[in-house]
Amino acid sequence: MIVTETKIRVRYADTDKMGYVYYGNYPTYYEVGRTEALRQMNSSYKKLEEAGVAMPIHTMNVKYMKPAYYDDLLTIKTFIKEKPERRMVFEYEVYNEENVLLNKAETTLAFVSIETGKPCRAPEWFVKLFDGYFNS
Amino acid sequence: MIVTETKIRVRYADTDKMGYVYYGNYPTYYEVGRTEALRQMNSSYKKLEEAGVAMPIHTMNVKYMKPAYYDDLLTIKTFIKEKPERRMVFEYEVYNEENVLLNKAETTLAFVSIETGKPCRAPEWFVKLFDGYFNS
Amino acid sequence: MIVTETKIRVRYADTDKMGYVYYGNYPTYYEVGRTEALRQMNSSYKKLEEAGVAMPIHTMNVKYMKPAYYDDLLTIKTFIKEKPERRMVFEYEVYNEENVLLNKAETTLAFVSIETGKPCRAPEWFVKLFDGYFNS
Amino acid sequence: MIVTETKIRVRYADTDKMGYVYYGNYPTYYEVGRTEALRQMNSSYKKLEEAGVAMPIHTMNVKYMKPAYYDDLLTIKTFIKEKPERRMVFEYEVYNEENVLLNKAETTLAFVSIETGKPCRAPEWFVKLFDGYFNS
Repeated sequence: MIVTETKIRVRYADTDKMGYVYYGNYPTYYEVGRTEALRQMNSSYKKLEEAGVAMPIHTMNVKYMKPAYYDDLLTIKTFIKEKPERRMVFEYEVYNEENVLLNKAETTLAFVSIETGKPCRAPEWFVKLFDGYFNS
Repeated sequence: MIVTETKIRVRYADTDKMGYVYYGNYPTYYEVGRTEALRQMNSSYKKLEEAGVAMPIHTMNVKYMKPAYYDDLLTIKTFIKEKPERRMVFEYEVYNEENVLLNKAETTLAFVSIETGKPCRAPEWFVKLFDGYFNS
Repeated sequence: MIVTETKIRVRYADTDKMGYVYYGNYPTYYEVGRTEALRQMNSSYKKLEEAGVAMPIHTMNVKYMKPAYYDDLLTIKTFIKEKPERRMVFEYEVYNEENVLLNKAETTLAFVSIETGKPCRAPEWFVKLFDGYFNS
Repeated sequence: MIVTETKIRVRYADTDKMGYVYYGNYPTYYEVGRTEALRQMNSSYKKLEEAGVAMPIHTMNVKYMKPAYYDDLLTIKTFIKEKPERRMVFEYEVYNEENVLLNKAETTLAFVSIETGKPCRAPEWFVKLFDGYFNS
């Protein structure tokens, strides 16, 4: 299993009139989580796209537990539990500064050739990044 | 069961560099869907808040099937399948102009007293709006 | 001069913890204003892009006067005061349901060839849409 | 004059179908710029609100020069050139990693009592933060 962490400061723009981070902003936070996870593995989503592969989303499941507030410094924990093949699953946990779990989510993304628009396998060089992390 | 429909025109702001509506914008579209559902029932989420009750989100599950594009005129179908009590479930289906189902989702929202911050029952006047729609 | 009007309902997503529409959401409202202005002239920004021309923004000046609130049904008045050539200027006024002017803005956009990335003139068919509206 | 710097990584969510950061996202970047400017002065916008003072925006003027792209690590330079009194002016310059100036802006914000909703002076403790930076 791979676990990475990244910090996000809640912006005024992210809040809603209830004073909470709007529920629809967390998918963006999860995007930051998985982007920084790949960067911490010495790769990046940008490189994937430059190599002709995009990762559109298939499913997202979110469980909201507690609100986040303006100016909170959140920790996004991103979990990769399986080697990417045709799909890649990321799990996320969002914590505030008191280490309270605010919400958690799972997203499944597909690999798609940008040229053909068809599903494809994760590029070999990309899969290799995950060697040694998983038994298989 | 209650089914309502509302239209959303995709804004340039909603698109991402893939040319698709960014996956994190659909929760906002679902918000519009449930807001307009309540309005079509001669109520509104605003009235609920003015009556001291907020509806924070508990869970959201999304299945993404096809992308939406800039300037598409989308139809959001919103389904209410059960009378609200302590929670309220909304289901959504998003269609493009060719009537292709692009994604579907389910959100569960709780009723919470704005004054105490505690979970509560849906207000009686609100529940009454749904009389006659459900067998129970 | 051309004046068009379009309506925007304020979404929960658009509000911030002050209870106002976040100041950074108005540029999106202005985008809707100018998009619907072109549509009301039997054209569309989408057609322009399909014809190989994009309109990146050059300047935006906004004067904020009063806040908009959740669920307000706003009117965006969009003004075109000059025939487009190499640039096109749109002015906007945002009103609430009580017809109070909330803010006004001016944006200048350039015409750019998508293929070359270079500035260009507005396509002739596009300029023709504005014939008869301006003395020149 | 006070000049501070803060970094923002461009998110996929921030891009549009042109591949650029959507023009309406820069006001959020400017918000981050001024928020981090106050934090670097050992204060915060959050403290201001907790002290009963909000800072709604009055004017924003933006000059867009070059686009920013996905995953760019931008530098937001924030300039404070005058002591805050009833209003406070922030200027911004956004640079990419090649140190190219992408856009610049100026925002004027007012001080307003949250309780009364009326304009007010900046709190004394807040003004004191700027002692020694300006001749006056």
